[in-house]
Amino acid sequence: MKDEILKGNKTVLSKAITLVESEKKEHREEANKLMLSLLPHTGKSLRVGISGTPGVGKSTFIESLGMNLIDLGHKVAVLAIDPSSQKSGGSILGDKTRMTRLSAEEKSFIRPTPSRGDLGGVALSTHESILLCEAAGFDIVLIETVGVGQSEVEVNELCDQFVLLLGPGGGDELQGIKRGILEFVDFIVVNKADGALEKKAQVAAHEYKSALEILRSDLKASDRVFLCSALENKGLDKFWQALEQVSAKTNKNLKRAGQLQYWYTKGLEACFKDYILSQGLDKSKDVLKKLEEGKSTPLSLAKESFKSLLG
Amino acid sequence: MKDEILKGNKTVLSKAITLVESEKKEHREEANKLMLSLLPHTGKSLRVGISGTPGVGKSTFIESLGMNLIDLGHKVAVLAIDPSSQKSGGSILGDKTRMTRLSAEEKSFIRPTPSRGDLGGVALSTHESILLCEAAGFDIVLIETVGVGQSEVEVNELCDQFVLLLGPGGGDELQGIKRGILEFVDFIVVNKADGALEKKAQVAAHEYKSALEILRSDLKASDRVFLCSALENKGLDKFWQALEQVSAKTNKNLKRAGQLQYWYTKGLEACFKDYILSQGLDKSKDVLKKLEEGKSTPLSLAKESFKSLLG
Repeated sequence: MKDEILKGNKTVLSKAITLVESEKKEHREEANKLMLSLLPHTGKSLRVGISGTPGVGKSTFIESLGMNLIDLGHKVAVLAIDPSSQKSGGSILGDKTRMTRLSAEEKSFIRPTPSRGDLGGVALSTHESILLCEAAGFDIVLIETVGVGQSEVEVNELCDQFVLLLGPGGGDELQGIKRGILEFVDFIVVNKADGALEKKAQVAAHEYKSALEILRSDLKASDRVFLCSALENKGLDKFWQALEQVSAKTNKNLKRAGQLQYWYTKGLEACFKDYILSQGLDKSKDVLKKLEEGKSTPLSLAKESFKSLLG
Repeated sequence: MKDEILKGNKTVLSKAITLVESEKKEHREEANKLMLSLLPHTGKSLRVGISGTPGVGKSTFIESLGMNLIDLGHKVAVLAIDPSSQKSGGSILGDKTRMTRLSAEEKSFIRPTPSRGDLGGVALSTHESILLCEAAGFDIVLIETVGVGQSEVEVNELCDQFVLLLGPGGGDELQGIKRGILEFVDFIVVNKADGALEKKAQVAAHEYKSALEILRSDLKASDRVFLCSALENKGLDKFWQALEQVSAKTNKNLKRAGQLQYWYTKGLEACFKDYILSQGLDKSKDVLKKLEEGKSTPLSLAKESFKSLLG
């Protein structure tokens, strides 16, 4: 697989992502070997997270942006986190049909990635999927997520720059967005600044700037909020230039170091969950008996069990 | 503390909940002892989860319902899960002012409970808080959650009966609700069936019945959907009678056994997270060095570390 990926073979890239997503033990070992052999060829892309509520025009935005970037000579990978499915299978077609123009491009690669667990995090493998795209020569990786649930917090642990896409709704819309996002967002783009909504979008952008000014003393709000019309491909160029400038001034490795530790920790937690399942601790009859007899609360018994687990 | 709680002393009950919520080691040990001594006096309440989107009138509903139940001779505890705060401190006042009539009652106890972690689950201690309320003689425990994020999935792991409170919005509103909820909901109550909205609420209730009929062959939809006006205290009595009937026919212990195992497993996972932090694994320089040198991906290294952790 390695050589084909390095040549940019998209079919093999796709298979490799399926491999790292697999939870089967033998697949995991194969995935490890592949990742180790490819690691020297990774890390060179600009990783951009893009989050926005449903209906804000995310697909149109990413398609327009992607087309522009390809025109500029880039190779663009899009990883779309799908919070509705825990397996990636069902939504591939959905994503291809969402971005028909972009997906037809030789220099694009679009792939949905599953979400994790019942609390809606990002699949642990997504970090490795990004690395695989980089090894295949994609120098821009867009990681898309719906701004619902908590996946955007974890997307920020995957990207160099985090972009929040908003509609022209202004203050009302901002209310629906978790405060937490504004604490780490790098750019806000107000989409749909076209036709009858243009004025409204301008007002909204102004409101977002004010909000950012209050919440973020670490950046200049006026350099971080942009208006665009993805439909008419207006304003995307300016936004991207600004993003590239900020990115050039930022030490990527600093944020990425924290991210490596974040995913390492998540990896450890996942190993422990697997361990619980493999040992049948979640369905142990002995444990249930003790709990039902009222000899302990679940939390206290968990403490005891854990102590004896780690000797 | 034990004796005072068994006497129904609400001040001490409140302190005991703060104790089980504490993450300090010495508090945890004290909490364990207290819980063990109280376990024989727990389990006798009817635990009802109530979820609904913001604006649906949850506070008014719970207040009216609570007042009715007190009139019937019950003692009613309300645990309100607050997804916006990770600590309970700030919102106590908020909850008391939300339900002024109910909180003034001798036979009521209202308490906010914090949410857990960045993915928005329910605090592990909430299960123990319920037990404490039971030991203090509350025979009905209402667990309130906002139907946003994933806390309702976990509230279902705390209650005997799960109630979804909806507005008169009908199909549109149903779209905004995660499909998953309908898979485990026991009752749907359409609130605001009063004044100008009464007709709309009737139509909505009809739609919800149809949805439930399609999705849930395990229950009779027409017995599970109710109209009410919390504001005018209409329809709450019928709903509660139905809930009591269903509850009487249900073997509580079956669901509760699964819940004990659920919280035991969550407890084990929490122990492991604590372990990671206490050992500084999330910030280990050795780990970061290996990762930055490209000798391993976070996931692979986590696997290796985990193996050596568990010998």
